[in-house]
Amino acid sequence: MSAILLAVDGPQAGEWLALLRERARGREVRLWPDHIGNASDIAYACVWLPPHGLLARFPNLKAIINLGAGVDRLLTDAALPAVPIARVAHPDLTMRMTEYVVLHVLMHHRRQRTYDAQQRERVWRVNPQPAASEVAVGIMGLGVIGLAAASAVGRLGFKVAGWSRTPRNSPGLETFHGTAGLDAFLARSEILVCLLPRTPQTEGLLNLALLRKLKRDGAAGGAFLINAARGQLQVEADILAALDEGSLAGATLDVFAEEPLPATSPLWSHPKVTITPHNAGDIAPRAFADNVIAQIERFECGLPLDNVIDRGRGY
Amino acid sequence: MSAILLAVDGPQAGEWLALLRERARGREVRLWPDHIGNASDIAYACVWLPPHGLLARFPNLKAIINLGAGVDRLLTDAALPAVPIARVAHPDLTMRMTEYVVLHVLMHHRRQRTYDAQQRERVWRVNPQPAASEVAVGIMGLGVIGLAAASAVGRLGFKVAGWSRTPRNSPGLETFHGTAGLDAFLARSEILVCLLPRTPQTEGLLNLALLRKLKRDGAAGGAFLINAARGQLQVEADILAALDEGSLAGATLDVFAEEPLPATSPLWSHPKVTITPHNAGDIAPRAFADNVIAQIERFECGLPLDNVIDRGRGY
Repeated sequence: MSAILLAVDGPQAGEWLALLRERARGREVRLWPDHIGNASDIAYACVWLPPHGLLARFPNLKAIINLGAGVDRLLTDAALPAVPIARVAHPDLTMRMTEYVVLHVLMHHRRQRTYDAQQRERVWRVNPQPAASEVAVGIMGLGVIGLAAASAVGRLGFKVAGWSRTPRNSPGLETFHGTAGLDAFLARSEILVCLLPRTPQTEGLLNLALLRKLKRDGAAGGAFLINAARGQLQVEADILAALDEGSLAGATLDVFAEEPLPATSPLWSHPKVTITPHNAGDIAPRAFADNVIAQIERFECGLPLDNVIDRGRGY
Repeated sequence: MSAILLAVDGPQAGEWLALLRERARGREVRLWPDHIGNASDIAYACVWLPPHGLLARFPNLKAIINLGAGVDRLLTDAALPAVPIARVAHPDLTMRMTEYVVLHVLMHHRRQRTYDAQQRERVWRVNPQPAASEVAVGIMGLGVIGLAAASAVGRLGFKVAGWSRTPRNSPGLETFHGTAGLDAFLARSEILVCLLPRTPQTEGLLNLALLRKLKRDGAAGGAFLINAARGQLQVEADILAALDEGSLAGATLDVFAEEPLPATSPLWSHPKVTITPHNAGDIAPRAFADNVIAQIERFECGLPLDNVIDRGRGY
């Protein structure tokens, strides 16, 4: 008996269950929390934000498959079993994240929030904007998603550079790295896009001191921030301070220190803030289900999993 | 004496004047309406929406340079002199129009208006959306701008097809043409982008009958329209009817039958309509001024102008 446990926190649990059962070719798929059955049957756990301690309950667990890109919450589970953890990686996730980045870079660049406000007042007025070729976009995090986003933004004509923890050589992309390269990267970036993983090194990185180092877009008055990574990377009070003092002209935030974002947060009603409910990388389970089962079948044959997490590095 | 007349209706007249004077290498640049001087000196007219009848006043006019893409208003001047008309074409204009198309395709695709409404209500809810690869975008008009927009939208993963009056073979792009190809094109398009020139054949094209033929995006409930061409192509009452009956789920309009859009128009406050003040292709004069003077200098040497208008065709 070697069953798959599905433990998904969120409204997609039912869709995942149907899809995995359809593709499991006879392998049993059990659903947390109500249909776990005998814990010793569970060999694979397909999870999204499972409660801490859950995975330690399965003595015969062989591998964990994380049904999303971020493993930060998983890795803070003190009782996490010492089995390989793979995360789904799929062109669908990369494309959706890229869409999100392109959309919000363009919303800022094209002054869409100004036009929204003008529409409410029935005001017909053209606001001059620079050409994309005059605007510098900086992408923090150069994994698969960061590189795809950099490429898509670059094809629209923006001046794009990337920053990563360790050196990264990507043809055609100007890159900076490490603490030593950070200030120069910030000083040339008017639109900052954060796609970094959450690690002890990145927590609180998007603070007032960093935001003040960004290049200020002349026409808009300040820089622009897009965080589609993890809420723990941003200091929300500092983002508000940067918006109010003018270092930032606007921000799009998909992630927050506390999610759902509490109704009391001043971010909700700030006129320069766009809020989305952590859906930048919201994937369609049907695009991934084949890959999840294929990973398990390959692992059973003795082949390694794809996209295995490095626990020391944290992603 | 062979002077340049600058006749620009709009706030950019002063910027154009300074730029052309800087680059004119001794050639005189005169500004309509106050500094025309002796009308027989004018050999070249650089114009944007000049009043009808103005150009007939210059007996020695050799060529007209239109400082934008659309020549529809120019061509309805019954007294238009029979000299060549060139229009500016520049990567800057193409890129700005492309940005506009990509932005508004993504705003619809990513349900940005729904998230805007949720933000106002402090509601944290993920709305499922299809992958770009499941969504069909149709581009009407396959000139330089239409092809660039089709390519940019295609690179984001959408299923893109184009429609044009006459057959157009563009590698990698599914194309339809003519009246015979229109219905099939509409039936496969959930997001319709109009980039056609205004001609007697295109006036009133975007009417209720056409909008009802579009494919309805399953999740959004209706199709989506982006008109960044000319207001005369759309029947505004029909767009409102299509939105209210559900054939359309939303519309982004940059152009209107009457501009500025009158404050009394119900489009301003319709919750499914996004309005921009005819700025999709708003160019930066500095990107074009060199090209304008170079065109005049080449013409003086007996070389043909670039992008000469075909008056019979209307664009």
